[in-house]
Amino acid sequence: MKAKENAADVTITQGALPGSEKIYVKGDRVAVAMRRIDLSDTIDEDGKRHSNEPVVVYDTSGPYTDPNYQADPRKGLPKLRAQWIEDRGDVERLKDLSSAYGRMRRADTRLDHLRFEHIESHPLRAKAGKRVSQLHYARQGIITPEMEYVAIRENQCCDQIREAYKKEKGEGFGAHIPDLITPEFVRSEIAAGRAILPANINHPESEPMIIGRNFLVKINANIGNSPLSSTIAEEVEKAVWATRWGADTVMDLSTGKNIHETREWIVRNSPVPVGTVPLYQALEKVKGKTEDLTWDIYRDTLIEQAEQGVDYFTIHAGLRWQHIPLTMKRLTGIVSRGGAIMAHWCTIHKQESFLYSHFEEICEILSQYDVAVSIGDGLRPGSIADANDEAQFAELKTLGELARIADQHDVQVIIEGPGHVPMQKIRENMELQLDLCNEAPFYTLGPLVTDIAPGYDHITSAIGAAMIGWLGTSMLCYVTRKEHLGLPNREDVKEGVITYKLAAHAADLAKGHPAAYWRDWSMSKARYEFRWMDQFHLALDSETALKFHDETLPAEGHKKAHFCSMCGEHFCSMRASRQLHDKIEGEAPAVGVTNEE
Amino acid sequence: MKAKENAADVTITQGALPGSEKIYVKGDRVAVAMRRIDLSDTIDEDGKRHSNEPVVVYDTSGPYTDPNYQADPRKGLPKLRAQWIEDRGDVERLKDLSSAYGRMRRADTRLDHLRFEHIESHPLRAKAGKRVSQLHYARQGIITPEMEYVAIRENQCCDQIREAYKKEKGEGFGAHIPDLITPEFVRSEIAAGRAILPANINHPESEPMIIGRNFLVKINANIGNSPLSSTIAEEVEKAVWATRWGADTVMDLSTGKNIHETREWIVRNSPVPVGTVPLYQALEKVKGKTEDLTWDIYRDTLIEQAEQGVDYFTIHAGLRWQHIPLTMKRLTGIVSRGGAIMAHWCTIHKQESFLYSHFEEICEILSQYDVAVSIGDGLRPGSIADANDEAQFAELKTLGELARIADQHDVQVIIEGPGHVPMQKIRENMELQLDLCNEAPFYTLGPLVTDIAPGYDHITSAIGAAMIGWLGTSMLCYVTRKEHLGLPNREDVKEGVITYKLAAHAADLAKGHPAAYWRDWSMSKARYEFRWMDQFHLALDSETALKFHDETLPAEGHKKAHFCSMCGEHFCSMRASRQLHDKIEGEAPAVGVTNEE
Repeated sequence: MKAKENAADVTITQGALPGSEKIYVKGDRVAVAMRRIDLSDTIDEDGKRHSNEPVVVYDTSGPYTDPNYQADPRKGLPKLRAQWIEDRGDVERLKDLSSAYGRMRRADTRLDHLRFEHIESHPLRAKAGKRVSQLHYARQGIITPEMEYVAIRENQCCDQIREAYKKEKGEGFGAHIPDLITPEFVRSEIAAGRAILPANINHPESEPMIIGRNFLVKINANIGNSPLSSTIAEEVEKAVWATRWGADTVMDLSTGKNIHETREWIVRNSPVPVGTVPLYQALEKVKGKTEDLTWDIYRDTLIEQAEQGVDYFTIHAGLRWQHIPLTMKRLTGIVSRGGAIMAHWCTIHKQESFLYSHFEEICEILSQYDVAVSIGDGLRPGSIADANDEAQFAELKTLGELARIADQHDVQVIIEGPGHVPMQKIRENMELQLDLCNEAPFYTLGPLVTDIAPGYDHITSAIGAAMIGWLGTSMLCYVTRKEHLGLPNREDVKEGVITYKLAAHAADLAKGHPAAYWRDWSMSKARYEFRWMDQFHLALDSETALKFHDETLPAEGHKKAHFCSMCGEHFCSMRASRQLHDKIEGEAPAVGVTNEE
Repeated sequence: MKAKENAADVTITQGALPGSEKIYVKGDRVAVAMRRIDLSDTIDEDGKRHSNEPVVVYDTSGPYTDPNYQADPRKGLPKLRAQWIEDRGDVERLKDLSSAYGRMRRADTRLDHLRFEHIESHPLRAKAGKRVSQLHYARQGIITPEMEYVAIRENQCCDQIREAYKKEKGEGFGAHIPDLITPEFVRSEIAAGRAILPANINHPESEPMIIGRNFLVKINANIGNSPLSSTIAEEVEKAVWATRWGADTVMDLSTGKNIHETREWIVRNSPVPVGTVPLYQALEKVKGKTEDLTWDIYRDTLIEQAEQGVDYFTIHAGLRWQHIPLTMKRLTGIVSRGGAIMAHWCTIHKQESFLYSHFEEICEILSQYDVAVSIGDGLRPGSIADANDEAQFAELKTLGELARIADQHDVQVIIEGPGHVPMQKIRENMELQLDLCNEAPFYTLGPLVTDIAPGYDHITSAIGAAMIGWLGTSMLCYVTRKEHLGLPNREDVKEGVITYKLAAHAADLAKGHPAAYWRDWSMSKARYEFRWMDQFHLALDSETALKFHDETLPAEGHKKAHFCSMCGEHFCSMRASRQLHDKIEGEAPAVGVTNEE
């Protein structure tokens, strides 16, 4: 059977993360997957043991890290949300695919080897006259199982460990994270348009998550092949790999071969929401000739992808014909791919962008599947020199207009943001966005705070990402160290995800998120007590931490040593400080020692 | 000859950086080394050529990157400042080393193989009653050649390219960087105590540089062996290697064997100021027994190192006996090595720290050699949980007191800062420091903005470093990815330096430094015009940028390609945008395109 040939190529990384156990926290209607890191006991100088509470962390990795689950990429993941969707009674199963292109691909027998059991020819769609978005339900006062799932997930069991993390006072710039997230709070944030819960009815495999500034800051990892490299198998593994390390969503930005089938595979195997930029595929359909793009081709692409289960679309509808001359003064023109394509189209046809002029129709399609719209910033600055310029902010104003239209159609909406911005100009971006877009969640790419470090742009952008995350951005799109230079490989993807995870976590800490604080507290306690294995397990990247430690002190015994090779035994301050602590605790404070100063 | 044996081991990385030329910019009395990056021509779509101005960048690499210079580590670097020092007529050459330990080491014939031509037995010291610090001169209204050197160096020839970088408006939080730095401005900043020019009269090899918030943000790289690893040869190479990539100072934190000789080698071969923590060597002298430390041993160590040419000492004099109980509430106690040692000493002896009680005497010694003092924050927080606590700020107040004492002795002073601080607490550190320490330059270690990413602490700390640099910190001490795990190797040192260089540069940009803006502008122009080799040359790390690019597109022809493997030819937005630009420029703006919105 030809089908098996390709299937055999897909190897998905599975298995629990070091020192971690998959747990399922029960709610009324849901069982929420989390990762519990069990810690070893603290041992006093006099040998007495004290237990340390386990730390429960947010887990994006899906069933793959559950040892009881055996992945089969040909079948795809279990359909966690299928019953919830059906129970609402507002969807119907279609007799056939609605997209002409989708039907054509299915009929093409040359593609048979790319298809497996999971191919769905009968997708779901809203019944006539119905809207099936989480935003619609929220506005009706309905708390869906998805919302309940999200509430439990965001809490990370931190209600069980309340005392330890009351210490940290955050600064939220208008964000207010409650001590305990309730399902009703989730509903109200979605209803207000301050958060989205991306959940296409045709992607029942995804675990519900939320994007909004009163929740944990999320990160996205871009994957996808380019015309120059990669296969379906590689991209499916890259998607799962990215979620293993913490990606909250993945965007499939494939521009190479078999985009339709690559996406099908990714969606069926992704435990997190999947985003795309439908324009890329539309352009492929006209063989890369921008001038041949039409609304009909684009529209069919939206439906094709909505019926595959894509959870959010980036749509560069805010770049209007009239904005284009504003970019002529720029140092680096238009650096968004979608933006550059649409600017070309408008200029060639001397016509308003069809994404802008058909935006209402787009929203009508999206509301039938609960695809969220991520309104793309086609005019985001591509260099420090172009940051916060007239073109960028003119487009942002249009993004705000479009957000209102989406909102009227009960389409969940987020707004994309820059790009390249020096630190002193970051705050203006956030404040304008909140103001112009009625608090719709902001989703930024970095921003990079300098242009002069190609090869290190995961870092130049993580600086901007941490800052803008703190200021109120809800999701950070990662940048890898290959940015501006080439396509990232598997290791680059992992490093990019970890880098953004730490930036998002730093933002959560700064905003005062109790669960974020709890993990840092536990890590530092383990560090001070030389519980090396606990440190590795609590690290965002256990494997790398362990590897670096072992480069100089590989022996098993050194996992219990009260020093590392950085300072050695006699110069270890932690060791000296602990001994001092024990010494002072053992006697009354020395005479003359007061806090008088 | 036995001496040659060890010398042969020292291989120093030499040669110009890619695409760069060493230039010497003439002043009245000085010739200032800089690096000029020549750029290729821009070629229009119609084949017309336009030249691009070269970019001149700050150069910390010393003579090693001058192809006309042949390094000989056995002789050390040329004595750039020797004549300037002599001309001031306020120093005398000593008949012998003043330090008993220094004389003992010299007399030890077993160490002969570690000595070479450069060993100085007749160091300089101020004549009786004289103070020879740059601060002293500045207060007398004297503009030294060192100050003139610094003024020219800080400008980076940006007066020659004025128009292009007027665009960027910075925000300085009270810092004010003039468009053109004059020698008189340098003098006035030093006189006000807002900047220091570390320049030990026994380190005439160093190229003058300045640390202060109205100048470029500087970075320090820590090197030095530990009892567990490394040799003299490795450490000398590491020091030169760090300056090659941009370290403005290096601190030799050796705690292993032959500390005295290791330092001698580093100082004689370092083109940048060298800092140390004399307490480490003092502790070595008493075989690691903290209780045996005495003021006499410490004092002799200060003199020993001052006569070798160390430019600044970290002295943890602010950790007082009475502060120690404040640390008992902490999660991670005392994490500064110097701080932990002194806290132990105070507790054992039930006595005030000898660093605090002898601080005036310390200043008298320092002023005779122009050693600057970096007052160490022995109580800096070692975790997010301990940030900005009572212990830390009580000590900071004492640091302010000590800064005033140093100032009264004409000793140049900087203040060390944290450590581990979540983002929302960074600003308080900076503001308190400026307030309590009378605007003395702040010198921070990161700070790390989260504890949960061991293996990535160059990044967790670069986020905090960029922010605090923007807020007013004058020098950032780098953190490598091995922090908390082990001793960094050569590659870790380079990565740490580049990471901090980009953080410091991001801070310069945010503060509105014109030369910083110029480099970003030139990089982005090269990027937009697909001048790949220019991009690599303008990058902080040309070699890595080139390597990453070539991983997927190695052919020479691709160095001229109008795309890279990230998006491929048809999806390259820069390519599309440039074509669009040419299209629109070739005709009148399309009808109906207005800026009306």
